Amino acid sequence: MESAIPAELTVPRTRHPRVPDDFRPPYPSFVARHAPSVRQLVMAYLGSQGASGHEALDAALGGPDGPGHWDRATQVADGLPSDVVTAAYWDDPAVFDRWFARHREPWLTGGGGQGRWIEAIRPTVERYETIFGSRRRPEGVAVLAESFSGEIREHGYWGGMRDRMPASQHSPLHSPGELDVERDGARVRVRPRGSVCLIRSGQDWSDAAEDERRMYTEEVEPNLRAGMGFLREEGLAIGCFANRYLTVLDDAGSPTERTYGLSWWRTLAELERWSETHPTHVAIFGAFGRLVRAQGARTQLRLYHEVSVATPDEQWFEYVDCHERTGLLRAAP
Amino acid sequence: MESAIPAELTVPRTRHPRVPDDFRPPYPSFVARHAPSVRQLVMAYLGSQGASGHEALDAALGGPDGPGHWDRATQVADGLPSDVVTAAYWDDPAVFDRWFARHREPWLTGGGGQGRWIEAIRPTVERYETIFGSRRRPEGVAVLAESFSGEIREHGYWGGMRDRMPASQHSPLHSPGELDVERDGARVRVRPRGSVCLIRSGQDWSDAAEDERRMYTEEVEPNLRAGMGFLREEGLAIGCFANRYLTVLDDAGSPTERTYGLSWWRTLAELERWSETHPTHVAIFGAFGRLVRAQGARTQLRLYHEVSVATPDEQWFEYVDCHERTGLLRAAP
Repeated sequence: MESAIPAELTVPRTRHPRVPDDFRPPYPSFVARHAPSVRQLVMAYLGSQGASGHEALDAALGGPDGPGHWDRATQVADGLPSDVVTAAYWDDPAVFDRWFARHREPWLTGGGGQGRWIEAIRPTVERYETIFGSRRRPEGVAVLAESFSGEIREHGYWGGMRDRMPASQHSPLHSPGELDVERDGARVRVRPRGSVCLIRSGQDWSDAAEDERRMYTEEVEPNLRAGMGFLREEGLAIGCFANRYLTVLDDAGSPTERTYGLSWWRTLAELERWSETHPTHVAIFGAFGRLVRAQGARTQLRLYHEVSVATPDEQWFEYVDCHERTGLLRAAP
Repeated sequence: MESAIPAELTVPRTRHPRVPDDFRPPYPSFVARHAPSVRQLVMAYLGSQGASGHEALDAALGGPDGPGHWDRATQVADGLPSDVVTAAYWDDPAVFDRWFARHREPWLTGGGGQGRWIEAIRPTVERYETIFGSRRRPEGVAVLAESFSGEIREHGYWGGMRDRMPASQHSPLHSPGELDVERDGARVRVRPRGSVCLIRSGQDWSDAAEDERRMYTEEVEPNLRAGMGFLREEGLAIGCFANRYLTVLDDAGSPTERTYGLSWWRTLAELERWSETHPTHVAIFGAFGRLVRAQGARTQLRLYHEVSVATPDEQWFEYVDCHERTGLLRAAP
């Protein structure tokens, strides 16, 4: 059993963890371990309102200063125009800056009238955490990590997400702010005044056997879909700026059996409150729990998330030719 | 909006509350406010394994130095012999001590071979909290209070229970310990080595109209019963020393439409973990939430609890002629 906070980021505490030192989690979980030289990560979500025109982006992603890892997903049909979302990860912001200087404009203006957008953050490692139920297959930013940890202590209770973030040793991680909007024709920049919280929370049932697959699709997924829809349509009132429910695509552009929710929150605290007490998430949590208990050690459903809190200077939100319900535009005044 | 912690018990913090200052609970709740002169409460549970022989106790309760309030309940049928439990409350330990000196032995030895027991604590007001969904009818220790508070801030999130306790401003409220047992013939004293946590958590559906009553009895109560049964039979592994699920009796000894769970825990932290994440309580929480949302402002279901953390010198556990599954005997080595 080890701490999710790596030794090099352990500092004298002014704030206590949520659980006493003798707490033992009821099941194992793991976190991504980056090389100690990694000080800041970049998560860039590149969106397209239309499936075409990704060839230039693919070349850029594979070219100089490209991301250490990327994947592509599409918004699950939900009454909105589908976005195709490319999630790209760097562990050196200087490399990202070079890449972004070269490819930002071509991406944003290459849609030929179709919406294009970029939502990117660069949290320091102090304000970022991951969790994985299994070490077999990293996803998202964890693909950049050196390794997985051993079994960690800070999970299996409400508040573990915060306790896994090194900054929680001394910071409330709370800097709520509304959104400023700068419009220049079809181009919109959104500038949150406070720190924002991003969660990518995923599930992969591609290895699940028949009965687990049936439980997932019939009992878990409808609750997940309802919760994602609630956040998208009504989340702003409880601090969710934007929510997308995405299906990962394979190299040929076909949907896989991996999905994730991508949610922007005004604060980590508001994400905590929804997760812990809102009926839509209580239903998701309950359904996942029933599946895991029914499957026991046989379970092949893989769950993970990554959560970041990024200060205003660590954020970039830019939209060109996008409809007004796109990403943070929806939450803009 | 006010703090659950009264002004006279507010001290400089070394520990932070669970939520930021800008948190606003999604619905109102209230706490019992005692006179500032009240420094310590006494909760004495007097149990009888058999329904007869309460006349002497009734006289004692109504006599000199008797409790400010008491009620009587019976263990809901659950495969165990039924206990009749008289819960008595004092807000001055000196008065209780005089009463106890006179009535302890007559009570414990008056069963004529039927089991008798006493489980009592005297927490200071720093290590005690209440919560009520409505101010219409106090129950339990709150009957001793001067008044109810206005709407309080520290509820509607996991961790509110701890945050409402004044001692949480500076103490982890965590002193886990196992149980020592002293046997003297048919008499057993149990002496926990650590602080213990007691929760009385109740529900009153006597004012509920037809549809709410149906939802309570058909959808909520079965989950509650299952959770209570889990704690009674399997709770020790997760830190629950003992659990009883009780129906309050009216003056004629007939069951009312008010029940409560009475649970002894090794630590407040373990009570928190069960409440927040155990499938049995997630099911209870989900069912209560569905009822409250379905009923909206019409709801007449009244919910309350009182929670205390008592140090070893604030505890008294004594059993005479009791079966080995009684109260803390069950958890004794």
